[in-house]
Amino acid sequence: MNKIIDGKFYAQELNTRLKNSIEQINGKRKPKLTIIQIGDNFASNKYIKNKLNACEKVGIIGELKKYQENIKQSEIVREIEKLNKDLTVDGIIVQLPLPSHINEKEITDTISPLKDADGFTPINLGNVMLNKSNIYPATPYGIIKLLEWKKINLIGANIVIIGRSNIVGKPLANMLINKSATVTVCNTKTKDLKRICKNADVLISAAGAANLVTKDFVNDKMTIIDVGANFVDGKYCGDVKFDEVFEIVKYITPVPGGVGPMTISCLLENTFNLYSQKEN
Amino acid sequence: MNKIIDGKFYAQELNTRLKNSIEQINGKRKPKLTIIQIGDNFASNKYIKNKLNACEKVGIIGELKKYQENIKQSEIVREIEKLNKDLTVDGIIVQLPLPSHINEKEITDTISPLKDADGFTPINLGNVMLNKSNIYPATPYGIIKLLEWKKINLIGANIVIIGRSNIVGKPLANMLINKSATVTVCNTKTKDLKRICKNADVLISAAGAANLVTKDFVNDKMTIIDVGANFVDGKYCGDVKFDEVFEIVKYITPVPGGVGPMTISCLLENTFNLYSQKEN
Repeated sequence: MNKIIDGKFYAQELNTRLKNSIEQINGKRKPKLTIIQIGDNFASNKYIKNKLNACEKVGIIGELKKYQENIKQSEIVREIEKLNKDLTVDGIIVQLPLPSHINEKEITDTISPLKDADGFTPINLGNVMLNKSNIYPATPYGIIKLLEWKKINLIGANIVIIGRSNIVGKPLANMLINKSATVTVCNTKTKDLKRICKNADVLISAAGAANLVTKDFVNDKMTIIDVGANFVDGKYCGDVKFDEVFEIVKYITPVPGGVGPMTISCLLENTFNLYSQKEN
Repeated sequence: MNKIIDGKFYAQELNTRLKNSIEQINGKRKPKLTIIQIGDNFASNKYIKNKLNACEKVGIIGELKKYQENIKQSEIVREIEKLNKDLTVDGIIVQLPLPSHINEKEITDTISPLKDADGFTPINLGNVMLNKSNIYPATPYGIIKLLEWKKINLIGANIVIIGRSNIVGKPLANMLINKSATVTVCNTKTKDLKRICKNADVLISAAGAANLVTKDFVNDKMTIIDVGANFVDGKYCGDVKFDEVFEIVKYITPVPGGVGPMTISCLLENTFNLYSQKEN
């Protein structure tokens, strides 16, 4: 049995399905995703390029609106309000991180929930908690798709999440609770982290800390989802000591090629779903 | 040391403080809470009476709008829209449960977030998840107040919640995660519930199942919060076998007189906060 959960492979499969759906749109305009970037962060440039490439491959119009580092809060808000009204724009995302003078919360709150391709607006997150949303934050959504693809039981499963960010840990916890899993959310203050993790059926690390998860955290029935995106000595890696735990666990996602491609795929799916809601 | 967490006592203290704040409102109108009831559910009648009495005691105008069991969805929506516009109304709550022909989600979504005294609207729950709200669902808010009153450490504490409802389990989990606790949410599908609970520093039972929590669930450092509101042989009781665990645990809330009075107190505080936001 192959232990590796090949997110790259599955994301490509999902992207191909999405491409086919978009090709079947007859006569109407194509879906459009607008990405707002402020400043010129190196990692952001790379992520945005990946998103725009992915848009092109599936037939979504990807548009980058790049603004100077020193742009005023009020100007960005005005730009988003314009995009909210633009009938040709289906999804709007603001690439994080933002410069320190920009109030991220106000920016997110400005995005129309009807164009919230990242699923980060409060009204959408509230509906995620209530299990009434059809748009999910892309990384948690990708993780759940991977687990379901591999037919990993979630009902009654002990799932431990390391990390409680607004974009991964917390929405993911709510989504898994709604899937009837027993969910534990850990953070940097957690006592006895190893013991808690070692009992898990599914361990999801979204801590952003390289080499955090060692063989002492795992068991031989465990599925590991590594959400870490760390750079160590110029090398891109996750939170998990992959070589050390690989032999022990049942399933594991690699970094790169695990959660990352799924996140982009889910962003595209969100954009298409927002388009479909509007056009149908 | 007194083991009992006396919610009734603390709620009265909070209500007295609130009464003083409301008395200091000079010349302006008083805060007003409007309760919508559909039909004539026995338990609802009792809860509503308690809420109206509590309003009167602290100087909030409590108003009951009672509608026939067979009222149409569209009429209730229209009534709420009227209340949303009514400048004399600060808080609106819809007493649950609703008759089966009424769509609860649509009703909740209609309440203006600016008048959402129960904190049940999606935009408010999203902001609770994001730790950016100033209105919290009343029962979770009351529980956190009790824990803080007793100076029970939450940072890094192992907190287990039994139950994952939209009004207690899920919002409470998000609030405790934001307080840096390690939070586990269990449900009826949870395997090995006893073992999970037995390790907890704080055990919160919101399962609605009498006698669920026995001595096998507890330890001698544990704080128990019993959110259960069950009737067994005509007697009102919680989820916890109180007599059996009382001797073992460190702190415990009684039923009645624990979480219940705090819920009402927090509802009043929410109403006053909504009033203050509007008037200042």
